[in-house]
Amino acid sequence: MAIEDKLGYTFKNKYFLNRALTRKAFALEQRQQNIECEDQEIYRTLGDAVLKTVLIDLLIKSGVNSRGEITSRKKSLEREEGLADISKKLGIGAYLKLGKGESKQKADEEPYVLAETLEAVIGAIYLDGGFAACKGIIEKLFTI
Amino acid sequence: MAIEDKLGYTFKNKYFLNRALTRKAFALEQRQQNIECEDQEIYRTLGDAVLKTVLIDLLIKSGVNSRGEITSRKKSLEREEGLADISKKLGIGAYLKLGKGESKQKADEEPYVLAETLEAVIGAIYLDGGFAACKGIIEKLFTI
Repeated sequence: MAIEDKLGYTFKNKYFLNRALTRKAFALEQRQQNIECEDQEIYRTLGDAVLKTVLIDLLIKSGVNSRGEITSRKKSLEREEGLADISKKLGIGAYLKLGKGESKQKADEEPYVLAETLEAVIGAIYLDGGFAACKGIIEKLFTI
Repeated sequence: MAIEDKLGYTFKNKYFLNRALTRKAFALEQRQQNIECEDQEIYRTLGDAVLKTVLIDLLIKSGVNSRGEITSRKKSLEREEGLADISKKLGIGAYLKLGKGESKQKADEEPYVLAETLEAVIGAIYLDGGFAACKGIIEKLFTI
């Protein structure tokens, strides 16, 4: 997929990428097994934690030496608008599998959906390729 | 240090472990350079994020398939009392460098101090040995 080229990461198991791009509403409509319906949300929870870890690591290594500054700069880096911008650059919206209602509302252009999906993609990379793969990609995508 | 034996991890650079065990109040009293004073707090911020990442990963791999359950079980696993218990088993209190006021108040027995220091030690392991080292240790210390 072109998204893999833009990420600079090729999934060994495309299942993870596919699930990261599938909204719960779409999965429910397709009557997929319940076990899969929440995958995007679960990956997002994981991706959010991975992203926080890498951003804090990068901020420490960049020389920030106060906890307050690390916390505030991390919060600024993981703002919805910023994540949505990165998501747009990666062209994630075009690959999203949305529920019918979401499609009508053009959810693939909504910053919160784009931001959530970027987090889910990060979670998927973690599950497919481990923490080091995520770290390399986050370092490329974010400007500390 | 005995704490390394109990952790099953030997620091390549003892500096990281030393900073994780040094409370800000002690560092300030010793008039150490400002850059080091907040190290324990910074490591704690990092360790908290690493811990969250690993716990979510372990919960997903244990088969939990709802985001709500992952979130609630993660919260339960990272409760202050639980972290303080693990800290006690590792004997962390005996190695803490406390400020004078903290020493008087026996802060080395306070659950919140023990919990915070465990997080700082996890952050120190990340900085010394990387994510994989942390993951192995967290898997041993926590029962999912």
